[in-house]
Amino acid sequence: MATERSSVPEAYDDLLEQYERATYLGDANMVLSWDQEVMMPEEGTPARAKQRSAVSAMQHELLVDDDVGAWLDELEATELPAEEAAVVREIRRQYDRKARVPTELVEEISEVTSDAHPVWQEARETDDWSTFAPTVERLLELKREYAEHIDPDADPYAVLFADYEPYLDLETAERVLERLRDRLVPLIDDIRAADADLHAVEGTFPEDDQLALARETLEALGYDFDRGRLDTAPHPFSSGTQFDARVTTRFDESEPLDSLGSTVHEFGHATYTQGLSTDDYGTPLGEHRGLTVHESQSRLWENHVGRSRAFWEGFVPRFNDYHGTGLTPEQAYEAANRVYEDNLIRVEADELTYHLHIILRFEIERDLLAGDLDVAEVPAVWNDKMEEYLGIRPETDADGCLQDIHWSHGSFGYFPTYSLGSVLAAQLYDAAADEVADLDEKIRAGEFGPLHEWLTDNVHAHGRRHTTDELVEEATGEPFTADFFLDYAESKFGALYGLDAAR
Amino acid sequence: MATERSSVPEAYDDLLEQYERATYLGDANMVLSWDQEVMMPEEGTPARAKQRSAVSAMQHELLVDDDVGAWLDELEATELPAEEAAVVREIRRQYDRKARVPTELVEEISEVTSDAHPVWQEARETDDWSTFAPTVERLLELKREYAEHIDPDADPYAVLFADYEPYLDLETAERVLERLRDRLVPLIDDIRAADADLHAVEGTFPEDDQLALARETLEALGYDFDRGRLDTAPHPFSSGTQFDARVTTRFDESEPLDSLGSTVHEFGHATYTQGLSTDDYGTPLGEHRGLTVHESQSRLWENHVGRSRAFWEGFVPRFNDYHGTGLTPEQAYEAANRVYEDNLIRVEADELTYHLHIILRFEIERDLLAGDLDVAEVPAVWNDKMEEYLGIRPETDADGCLQDIHWSHGSFGYFPTYSLGSVLAAQLYDAAADEVADLDEKIRAGEFGPLHEWLTDNVHAHGRRHTTDELVEEATGEPFTADFFLDYAESKFGALYGLDAAR
Repeated sequence: MATERSSVPEAYDDLLEQYERATYLGDANMVLSWDQEVMMPEEGTPARAKQRSAVSAMQHELLVDDDVGAWLDELEATELPAEEAAVVREIRRQYDRKARVPTELVEEISEVTSDAHPVWQEARETDDWSTFAPTVERLLELKREYAEHIDPDADPYAVLFADYEPYLDLETAERVLERLRDRLVPLIDDIRAADADLHAVEGTFPEDDQLALARETLEALGYDFDRGRLDTAPHPFSSGTQFDARVTTRFDESEPLDSLGSTVHEFGHATYTQGLSTDDYGTPLGEHRGLTVHESQSRLWENHVGRSRAFWEGFVPRFNDYHGTGLTPEQAYEAANRVYEDNLIRVEADELTYHLHIILRFEIERDLLAGDLDVAEVPAVWNDKMEEYLGIRPETDADGCLQDIHWSHGSFGYFPTYSLGSVLAAQLYDAAADEVADLDEKIRAGEFGPLHEWLTDNVHAHGRRHTTDELVEEATGEPFTADFFLDYAESKFGALYGLDAAR
Repeated sequence: MATERSSVPEAYDDLLEQYERATYLGDANMVLSWDQEVMMPEEGTPARAKQRSAVSAMQHELLVDDDVGAWLDELEATELPAEEAAVVREIRRQYDRKARVPTELVEEISEVTSDAHPVWQEARETDDWSTFAPTVERLLELKREYAEHIDPDADPYAVLFADYEPYLDLETAERVLERLRDRLVPLIDDIRAADADLHAVEGTFPEDDQLALARETLEALGYDFDRGRLDTAPHPFSSGTQFDARVTTRFDESEPLDSLGSTVHEFGHATYTQGLSTDDYGTPLGEHRGLTVHESQSRLWENHVGRSRAFWEGFVPRFNDYHGTGLTPEQAYEAANRVYEDNLIRVEADELTYHLHIILRFEIERDLLAGDLDVAEVPAVWNDKMEEYLGIRPETDADGCLQDIHWSHGSFGYFPTYSLGSVLAAQLYDAAADEVADLDEKIRAGEFGPLHEWLTDNVHAHGRRHTTDELVEEATGEPFTADFFLDYAESKFGALYGLDAAR
């Protein structure tokens, strides 16, 4: 760090050293997890669970150490330069959230979530919410207790949400999600009523070709393979550090655009990680800001770049080469942006209906946590909301409330960050387009460097120097708002589906 | 564990819990290391080094905790059942060796070895021992100091050797190595004088074919792919736990028998790991006995199975299929057992000359550590010994004393376990052949299960219940001896090279 250090007490170095060690353990755990998803043979699970739990426990012990509390107290009583103050703010936040929760509760949550996974899998396979319901009930109790320890005066859901997005308050999130619901539901209705026939890519597209194209696409977008790799995994994800940020993807031989979109999505996550400061590795200044900002990076590349007309004008020859198709840029653009009539599955949703999938989950988990909804009622409420928002009704729980893994992890409060990230993506892309000359032209020409640089300078390189709201204002000149996303969505899909501009 | 537990004090459970946690961290570190060698992108090193060092430090802290010393004291004052006593013996051994060495010295050794690696690489590339010599000098000093802390009254080399082989004393090891030297040097002389023309496999053998054959060979030998995997690495190794024991190999397109041998060697290591008790995972009863026994398993499969006539009688059609060769079993057997005239490189050595490579390293590092040999003199002594034992002289240090990575790791005392493992392999194989009916016949028929079972029952499943010498006596009915290996070597190579049976 470049800041003048003369005035910084020794406690700062002690604090940082301990925090760095904890971060290294957390990052070691990410490698163990990547290996488990991508490489580990099937019978490795029992040993891996013990290894990961030992590493987690050691990391936890370092972070809740009484010394950490004492160092923080001392440093908070000192006038610190901005960067050091940001580091102290971030470590304090984590310390409080961890140290306030009794170890026994942490361990119990860990055990129950670990046992929950097979129960959820079984329930999904047998299409029976009632066998999973007692586990959800128990996790809700434990998570309420957890939230109570962290802040007994706050709405428990707000406390859980802050685990994933610490600096956008729940009211802001809720307002944004309501605006999305109120504007997207009629937009999707209009799209369906328009009955337009957007081009579709049909046929069989071998995995090998898709993998080769995915690799070339990552290279074209500027992914640094010296600090990453591409593999396949049943559930695509990206993970790692600024030195080694890996991407996984998967392939459906009848849906080559889906897997390409998924690859570009994970590229967006990985490029954020690769853009974090290497000098600050191990400290909050070298860590991502939170899930909203992380998701903004994946969505920006997936949707604002990878599903744009400019992108396909430049990219379509490469796609045609790999897959022996003869798509025009406009056909590819249409195919990449079809809004599905009857998709029940979140991870297969298009750019618009996706948010209604998120919003119904948010509404359900909020009510569950508040005690306003019985766990037994979830399937009925889920199906009613699907019908209300998307006009379709799941015939099974497996295609409905059992489709996501999140609740089996005890991750209540996570879903909103998916939509908030998309909203932020639109706001950031608009700001980038203002500042990067001829951005559309550059994307058409396959020059992704300037956009990448803008994002690195305005988002990635800051790590946790700023809070989320500060970061948004600094990067875009405005507070976090859904305006850009809604304008973008209505304009893009209005044009694609030939809707009346005055709707 | 099946033992009656009523008489075991609570300290035993506390001790075991702490030890298990440390083991899980150590195993997590093995995954980090495997990933680094096999999967990690090139710029991942700085972050990985920090992750591994954090995990190691936490493991070390758990093992040298004062509580561990107190629990051990209490348990040693108690009459314990045999298994529990073995656990206490093994943990005591590790505790003493770790707790007696000051943390600063451990850290300094870790730093110097970490810095040593690039220095060694550079010295090897520029063929200049003198640039590596100061590092070796420093590591010798530090390792002498380390040995002094562990046991000020013992020969420092014996102390270091015991890090790798705790239960065969150095005198035994030395006597065995001397016998090997005194019998193998004339045998190799005779082989060269015989001037026999053993069949050689020549041509180009694509990596893909070699990989496919390696995979099929592992399957044929009984490798459990549900608890392992096969990958390529620049320096083949195996690593993991009984739940996940992985193998790596490498391919030289002109030497398909070498890479096959290397694959079978690593299979031998992995099959030991897969044979450890899953119920005892995390405890000394679920850990391998030490490097001698580990190497005995790799050498047994590599040499006594994979380089046997019976094996090739059964296996040659498969080899011919993959590589489009038309070898007879006898030709393949000869080709797999050629003794090289002019090989300077240990890892490329044949079954016989290998041991002279080991013995010269052992003699040099013993003298270095005792202060009887100057570091500057190593190249001359190395070359003289190569000439004396093998009749060839390296023209460069890169092909001589700079070829191995071990000293840059500070691993003085490691080399002997390679030869001791081969010696033990012969002794174990002889015992197995006494007890498994028609073992040769079974190997010819590709029935490796009975040998595998004998090894699991007599070696793998015991973990660290017995010391090495006890294990050898229990499994073979005799103390550790070089007799079997020497008889085997003289008989096999005597026949292959048509030597006078009376020599």
